[in-house]
Amino acid sequence: MVLLSGGLDSATLLAIAQDSGFGCHALSFDYGQRHRFELAAAGRLAKATAVAEHRIVKIDLSAAGGFGRSALTDQIDVPKDRRQDGRVPVTYVPARNTIFLSLALGYAEVIGAFDIFIGVNAVDYSGYPDCRAEFVEAFEKLANLATAAAAEGPGRFTIHAPLINMTKGEIIRTGLALGVDYSLTHSCYDPDPHGAACGHCDSCRLRLAGFKAAGAEDPIRYQNT
Amino acid sequence: MVLLSGGLDSATLLAIAQDSGFGCHALSFDYGQRHRFELAAAGRLAKATAVAEHRIVKIDLSAAGGFGRSALTDQIDVPKDRRQDGRVPVTYVPARNTIFLSLALGYAEVIGAFDIFIGVNAVDYSGYPDCRAEFVEAFEKLANLATAAAAEGPGRFTIHAPLINMTKGEIIRTGLALGVDYSLTHSCYDPDPHGAACGHCDSCRLRLAGFKAAGAEDPIRYQNT
Repeated sequence: MVLLSGGLDSATLLAIAQDSGFGCHALSFDYGQRHRFELAAAGRLAKATAVAEHRIVKIDLSAAGGFGRSALTDQIDVPKDRRQDGRVPVTYVPARNTIFLSLALGYAEVIGAFDIFIGVNAVDYSGYPDCRAEFVEAFEKLANLATAAAAEGPGRFTIHAPLINMTKGEIIRTGLALGVDYSLTHSCYDPDPHGAACGHCDSCRLRLAGFKAAGAEDPIRYQNT
Repeated sequence: MVLLSGGLDSATLLAIAQDSGFGCHALSFDYGQRHRFELAAAGRLAKATAVAEHRIVKIDLSAAGGFGRSALTDQIDVPKDRRQDGRVPVTYVPARNTIFLSLALGYAEVIGAFDIFIGVNAVDYSGYPDCRAEFVEAFEKLANLATAAAAEGPGRFTIHAPLINMTKGEIIRTGLALGVDYSLTHSCYDPDPHGAACGHCDSCRLRLAGFKAAGAEDPIRYQNT
């Protein structure tokens, strides 16, 4: 069970899982994110990598539920060229990875999968609390207490976060070595109406710096280039 | 933040939270449960107890997501007069309380609430893995790692499960002492089209035995009575 957002990290994550011999089911979430091109990218990646199944689960974090007080779901400006200050940025979506992993856990239990892959990493760690190793470990513990599959057999859940200690450059180098087609991915928090990346939000800047560090060229389209 | 299903336990839970001086927000989930009367009961309870806000969040566990392989969401017969055998019954919904608590956590973080009440109890414990104290403790630990509110202040989440060590009889006695109107609640997994309880599913049998133990009469309507 691979959480596939459609971004650079989850594309690499899926490649790592497949390279490790796992037959993969991909799961994406439609939570009213402003960057809808991400979901289209997830679909392209799922198709290109021939996953066993790709599901998109709709969650009413924004409209119906009204949970999202985040620049990713609400009409708040996405910060551009932001200085990393160690504080949680406004693009933080409350409890997002907890919600995503919980839904993945339910789905995994239904299909009998015990390996859940999530693409959190150390670069995000500086900003989002639910991208830390302690969070992943706490969720794994919870998963094995929360489910019938673990409580009375037949298995034990493992939450895999293979990117967690990798820099963006390492992630990209790893992905390129595994044949990931990064032209299929989408990272920008604030794309133009045609899906071209802004190049200035946190996500674009991390991505561009990562490609530079990996000594490779980013194949996606940026605005004004 | 009180998880309000509309059943006997959550009605008591809400009364306990209010009696403890909390101003309560109630959260219910529409996850395609077959016993839709539960959601109507939640609405009645929220109104009768004058909660600050009552939200119903829709989750596609059944139709869209297709997660639910459970007698509560799918076309599987609800077991009647089932012997308690220590195994997880078919009414188990995969990872349900994990998903519910995760969404409650996101909502709580948005509104600045740090106390989340869930009505799991020891009677359910025999069947559902996500009704155990270990599960609740593991989720509390997770909540305090997963969120910006806890990671960089201003507070710490507490998951309250005041019913966890109470028998059904004790829950009902407690609720009656606090003035809970149990005629507003709904418990049956398999009601008739008018909402009358079957009297024979696990939930009805626990409820009826609870009222008997409490020396009180169940005010709801049962089929053939």
